[in-house]
Amino acid sequence: MSSVPTTVTLEKIVALCKRKGFVYQTAEIYGGLNGVYDFGHLGTLLKQNIRHAWIQSMQKTDHGEILFLEGSILSPHAVWEASGHVSNFHDPMVDCLNCKHRYRADDIDLHKACPHCGNKAWTDIRDFNMMFQTNLGAAADNTSVAYLRPETAQAIYINFKNVASTNRVKMPFGIAQIGKAFRNEITPKQFLFRMREFEQMEMEWFCKPENGLADFEYWCEQRMNFFKTIGIDQTKLRFHVQTPEELAHYSKGCKDVEYHFPFGWKELEGIAYRGDFDLTQHSKHSGKDLAVHDEATKTSYMPHVVESSIGVDRLFLTVLFDAYVEDMVEGEMRVVLKFHPKLAPIKAAFFPLVKKLNEPMHKIYLDMKRKGYMVDFDESGSIGKRYRRQDEMGTPACFTYDFESETDQCVTARNRDTTKQERINIDQISNYLENLLK
Amino acid sequence: MSSVPTTVTLEKIVALCKRKGFVYQTAEIYGGLNGVYDFGHLGTLLKQNIRHAWIQSMQKTDHGEILFLEGSILSPHAVWEASGHVSNFHDPMVDCLNCKHRYRADDIDLHKACPHCGNKAWTDIRDFNMMFQTNLGAAADNTSVAYLRPETAQAIYINFKNVASTNRVKMPFGIAQIGKAFRNEITPKQFLFRMREFEQMEMEWFCKPENGLADFEYWCEQRMNFFKTIGIDQTKLRFHVQTPEELAHYSKGCKDVEYHFPFGWKELEGIAYRGDFDLTQHSKHSGKDLAVHDEATKTSYMPHVVESSIGVDRLFLTVLFDAYVEDMVEGEMRVVLKFHPKLAPIKAAFFPLVKKLNEPMHKIYLDMKRKGYMVDFDESGSIGKRYRRQDEMGTPACFTYDFESETDQCVTARNRDTTKQERINIDQISNYLENLLK
Repeated sequence: MSSVPTTVTLEKIVALCKRKGFVYQTAEIYGGLNGVYDFGHLGTLLKQNIRHAWIQSMQKTDHGEILFLEGSILSPHAVWEASGHVSNFHDPMVDCLNCKHRYRADDIDLHKACPHCGNKAWTDIRDFNMMFQTNLGAAADNTSVAYLRPETAQAIYINFKNVASTNRVKMPFGIAQIGKAFRNEITPKQFLFRMREFEQMEMEWFCKPENGLADFEYWCEQRMNFFKTIGIDQTKLRFHVQTPEELAHYSKGCKDVEYHFPFGWKELEGIAYRGDFDLTQHSKHSGKDLAVHDEATKTSYMPHVVESSIGVDRLFLTVLFDAYVEDMVEGEMRVVLKFHPKLAPIKAAFFPLVKKLNEPMHKIYLDMKRKGYMVDFDESGSIGKRYRRQDEMGTPACFTYDFESETDQCVTARNRDTTKQERINIDQISNYLENLLK
Repeated sequence: MSSVPTTVTLEKIVALCKRKGFVYQTAEIYGGLNGVYDFGHLGTLLKQNIRHAWIQSMQKTDHGEILFLEGSILSPHAVWEASGHVSNFHDPMVDCLNCKHRYRADDIDLHKACPHCGNKAWTDIRDFNMMFQTNLGAAADNTSVAYLRPETAQAIYINFKNVASTNRVKMPFGIAQIGKAFRNEITPKQFLFRMREFEQMEMEWFCKPENGLADFEYWCEQRMNFFKTIGIDQTKLRFHVQTPEELAHYSKGCKDVEYHFPFGWKELEGIAYRGDFDLTQHSKHSGKDLAVHDEATKTSYMPHVVESSIGVDRLFLTVLFDAYVEDMVEGEMRVVLKFHPKLAPIKAAFFPLVKKLNEPMHKIYLDMKRKGYMVDFDESGSIGKRYRRQDEMGTPACFTYDFESETDQCVTARNRDTTKQERINIDQISNYLENLLK
């Protein structure tokens, strides 16, 4: 096995996702929907594993308690007015006066002609609000306007008091949420990198103002650590510390975890020290006091917030880029996804050497399935071909049942990354997998 | 311990959900959003466990393979035109001519006066389409109309060919999906029973036409079995077999699993033998042939579909109703949620008998947390009070560390359902829990 000097590209990942059924374009048989995707079998399993790893990383923290929340997608005008999204969440937009084609103004050189019709006649640049709007209920008046949330965080802020009081939790604590969010991007791009419908994993940490900076540093370290635990290449990760010019006016500090994509260093996760901006805004707009009472000092204070925010889909894309390897095995080029076994959609594949050995191997496969492992059974083509298929799916282990298996009660276990094979006892298969999954 | 002759009511469940933080109304601090809810810490964990149980029940089937899918919420007009939702998915609506209040026509007696203003002057009954509509992209023309999906099933049908070919799967097989769906109900009601934003777990089973009926019966049995595995009271479950009059025109059979709610027997899950209606519709409308080629007979056929469809939120509500018990313990009335331990949001709680024993018990608690168990630590109030709190949350086991624990390395384990206590070794805590979770 030797690696070949090839590089992963966005095109290779898109093609692999389609070929192996990780991702399909939404409503492809009807021409598709721009910037919106469906996740196939392997994609859904990979996403589930990513979410699980994140939940575990949150749940296991020693620093204090993390509670979970699932807010709704539909949300009323008042929330987004308080958050500033109604007045500020927009992109600059420009139309071609001739063909009416619409562009994001910062995506296009307005000194040049329209790429669509070739004329050069532009409207003024206007603001385009990126929130999807709909109407709730049968009454078609203004009071019924609702938005698809453009981020999950606001559901955490507006439930802060409810969560704190019903769970009898002490400061500091965090509220974590996974869920969909929607942004009406004028020009969605780079596959899963910038989508109109996407999924966020956000955690808002509430603490005393005097602990805000220390807790911000703590979470930066924790979050960078998370990527280690799911096997992301550390040399492709870095912090970008936002400069005072980049920071939002209310922000007290922000570090982006950046990953080295083929199209450059890009934000993967944002960790932001937001001060008391969000809770203060919602206190003002709702008329409800969201301050916390401190028994020790008999005073009230508005908690400070440290936010950790990452996109499931962007992490999904990162994991694919990071796992993608082309190497030479027995003189043949193979594509292999070297996922951390925890993230691998399929944990193991079971092969009968020839079809007449199907029955005993299928029994072993079913047994593993009943134990709750996500496993595959493949009986067609040469064993080498079957290895290649599983390599492309990122399956960490393959087991082959051959003519000797009947007598020695052993199978050949083959490791995805090393391609090394070893003979193991059938009743050791679970242990073999558990060792990989550690 | 003796049971008291009380009955569970919707009001009691709503109050419990609010008190313990299972469910909050969305944007409550802004007056709420009708028919839309947020799930708090315990609610989110319960939902996760319900989803996990369903995924496992699908994944472990011996009958054939179940693949997973996550389709998008946003979907184009063409999909819902083909499915019939654009022309048929509506409720009858009527307005009061005097006060303009709007009602579902079948919810109100039109021979009587308007319950809102007392006048009796109605508009004609009109159809109100229940799909939420929005616009995609910056162009504000008709081509950009998109809908929030009113059900998840269509994403499965339109991806059928993609899923079948990229996963090299043989007929019969199923595609399972969990995800949000949206229906603009004129009058949402009964808490989580009929919501505007809800979550579905749907599985579509694709098979040869000649096996359709047998597979339909197979899945009816399997699905009823599922409710047993999550501990639902079997005497409160029954099948309602749809009569020819109730069946959709294309349907070849439909059984609803009904649960005996305090407000009557209501549908919990629908199992439907849909024939080839859905794939035929999408073949026609998309112009893509969705038929399957049979190698053996060298002919093509349109697979038949058996559907299993259940709402996460409705099952969540069912689980709460089913688990809710009021009984007498030591002369005091207690509320206890007798969840199947698999579904319980918190698996165990750890109590130091007095505060000066906090440290060793907190160490044990952290150790369990690091092992991945969802656990709680409570140091305040009498042990009896702490038991009551955990009973109301449905926590199956509580462990108390007392003055003897230091010397005998044991804790007192207390069972939620029996209230029985036993002394167990600290290193047996994991085993004790694993036995419960079986």
